[in-house]
Amino acid sequence: MNYNDFFAREIAALKDEGNYREFAELERRRGAFPSATCHNGPADVTIWCSNDYLGMGQHPKVLEAMHTALDRSGAGAGGTRNISGTTHDHVVLEAELADLHGKEAALLFTSGYVSNWAALGTLASRIPGCVVLSDALNHASMIEGIRHSKAQKVIWRHNDLADLEAKLKALPANAPKLIAFESVYSMDGDIAPIKEICDLADRYGAMTYLDEVHAVGLYGPRGGGIAEREGLMDRLTVIEGTLGKAFGVVGGYIAASAELCDFVRSFASGFIFTTALPPCVAAGAAASIQHLKTSLAERSAQQDRVATVRRRLEAIGLPHIDNPSHIIPVMVGDPVKCKFISDTLLKEHGIYIQPINYPTVPKGTERLRITPSPVHSAADIDTLIDALEDLWTRCQLARRPMAAQ
Amino acid sequence: MNYNDFFAREIAALKDEGNYREFAELERRRGAFPSATCHNGPADVTIWCSNDYLGMGQHPKVLEAMHTALDRSGAGAGGTRNISGTTHDHVVLEAELADLHGKEAALLFTSGYVSNWAALGTLASRIPGCVVLSDALNHASMIEGIRHSKAQKVIWRHNDLADLEAKLKALPANAPKLIAFESVYSMDGDIAPIKEICDLADRYGAMTYLDEVHAVGLYGPRGGGIAEREGLMDRLTVIEGTLGKAFGVVGGYIAASAELCDFVRSFASGFIFTTALPPCVAAGAAASIQHLKTSLAERSAQQDRVATVRRRLEAIGLPHIDNPSHIIPVMVGDPVKCKFISDTLLKEHGIYIQPINYPTVPKGTERLRITPSPVHSAADIDTLIDALEDLWTRCQLARRPMAAQ
Repeated sequence: MNYNDFFAREIAALKDEGNYREFAELERRRGAFPSATCHNGPADVTIWCSNDYLGMGQHPKVLEAMHTALDRSGAGAGGTRNISGTTHDHVVLEAELADLHGKEAALLFTSGYVSNWAALGTLASRIPGCVVLSDALNHASMIEGIRHSKAQKVIWRHNDLADLEAKLKALPANAPKLIAFESVYSMDGDIAPIKEICDLADRYGAMTYLDEVHAVGLYGPRGGGIAEREGLMDRLTVIEGTLGKAFGVVGGYIAASAELCDFVRSFASGFIFTTALPPCVAAGAAASIQHLKTSLAERSAQQDRVATVRRRLEAIGLPHIDNPSHIIPVMVGDPVKCKFISDTLLKEHGIYIQPINYPTVPKGTERLRITPSPVHSAADIDTLIDALEDLWTRCQLARRPMAAQ
Repeated sequence: MNYNDFFAREIAALKDEGNYREFAELERRRGAFPSATCHNGPADVTIWCSNDYLGMGQHPKVLEAMHTALDRSGAGAGGTRNISGTTHDHVVLEAELADLHGKEAALLFTSGYVSNWAALGTLASRIPGCVVLSDALNHASMIEGIRHSKAQKVIWRHNDLADLEAKLKALPANAPKLIAFESVYSMDGDIAPIKEICDLADRYGAMTYLDEVHAVGLYGPRGGGIAEREGLMDRLTVIEGTLGKAFGVVGGYIAASAELCDFVRSFASGFIFTTALPPCVAAGAAASIQHLKTSLAERSAQQDRVATVRRRLEAIGLPHIDNPSHIIPVMVGDPVKCKFISDTLLKEHGIYIQPINYPTVPKGTERLRITPSPVHSAADIDTLIDALEDLWTRCQLARRPMAAQ
């Protein structure tokens, strides 16, 4: 078998479908984000699709903490958490995260992906007979973790309480159960009915595992996420989050009881056998979390920008999913047009919004996913809306009825 | 079911077996590594078990590159590689890695663990009918990746060419095959017969996947690993490595043909759906690799320290695995004694060497894994040897016949 020919054919097939991904090569400008230099496109671009939702990736406190930690302790951790890789910065960050979510403990992972994969994989495989009830739109990392566990998996319809209850009821009363779901779903921006899911979990003796990666830092009086905003953090068995989106750095974590965290710490291959995050990453993330526990400015400015962009899209009749979160999916519904619009926005307008195609979203729901942030100016918004209006006309894409004048 | 009670019981069982892990909480001192402050032990310790094998985690070029990138581009990448997270620093680093291994391309992952898991998982699952021939002592991340693929797996006896050939021969001639192995095995420090494995791969039409995480930066004229030292890089289909050990930062990668890298880039869930490494991490790693491509000083100083420690251990008859690498496993063979020795080294001598117990190594082969580096001084070595001699006497542990006087 000629392996390379096989790889080349598979890549060619992706290209034929319009699903081949080309990465924009960016250089963010600290202090001027969302401005960036694009090394394989126009020199000056404005990023409109970042998950650095609040611009914390350039916050002076975050950068100072990272510089200080680099000067104090150097670059890498030098080992796994067990073999010389646990630094004081990791311990401080875990305490900060436990406090953020009102839990006894927290456990760091190298990424949000790994935290879901390792925590769900370990819980579901090590609790004998555990059944995982998984929301149909859960993130790839959760799906892979559950699959990894080889536990029985029951998929319930997305955010559908009646379906979840029917599926809980159908399981043996004494079977250990784990309900896995997200608060803010990344691609549609809709939000789960957390309270009602916790009520069902109580009624049927299930644990709850809530992924808040698109919510931590952004919702709740201290940035604890949707569960904090709704006063529900104590009702969740596990809250999982990321340090790579609103907190602006990188890494993932779970927050839970001391026993649960110790259990995952002791048995999860993806936690044990991997080099710890650099101390400077932990220090930067801790500074970001601390800042957002008391500062409301970033969250309120973001909500303001999100509302403005939505209103402007309405005014020109551009179809977008109406949802209660900060994520604005503008629907195109065709992979080739979606890529064309994205390419043209970049080339002609210096606006960078990556097309979101299959497999990230279902075929036929291709979209531009816009994430307004406090660092987008009124002029940035004007430029964005003008460019979209121009392209929608040029591509003869459908509009919704205009908002009343 | 009371889930927390279950977790507590499992933890208690680990403690009873002597396999519960307690993490030393360290604060490395930049510029004075291997010195560190221990926050849950004696204030001053010398680290003797780090995988920052060359002390590159505190190299001025690495730190300067990280400071500069922080000031230029901020903290995090802000997205997945596809959605705004590919920065110029990532692209430069991937080119640096491809060049290091003489391959057309390289692909970055958030960790070495994820690179093995995602690359092996994707190759083995996506090549129809692929059979993976896996060395019996492969790392957990490789095992999990192969398991994840659900491909047929054939385990061959560790470093045993006759067994590998027998197993290749037993497979259908036209079945796609992937031989997965490591160059330096972390816990015993032995080295695979790479050339002979490549010969077998050629004979039976197999791809080869070589994990060089404990060798990159350390072996070969440019730090390309054992395969570079032996002039074999072009014979390997995939070379996998880490940025978190000798290169002193964090992250993992594969280097291979352009088609193979593009294939894994396009299909690996663990690559696609995760936030990219921070630009400063990529910049630091690139600086480290560049430095070690031309500087021999670190490698030769390390080899000198390793030889000295080995000679001194021989002189006092301490049992250690004789191997051709930089890893010195001093054998204890009992989990409780191993932990006692490690605890006492820390408490009484300020020497930090984590005990290596099950499941990292088989029961009965518990050990202290010593990793001498260029930053260990002659005085550090004296202190280490004196302390070990004292403890071996105190614990009445077996010695080998003394070296001839």
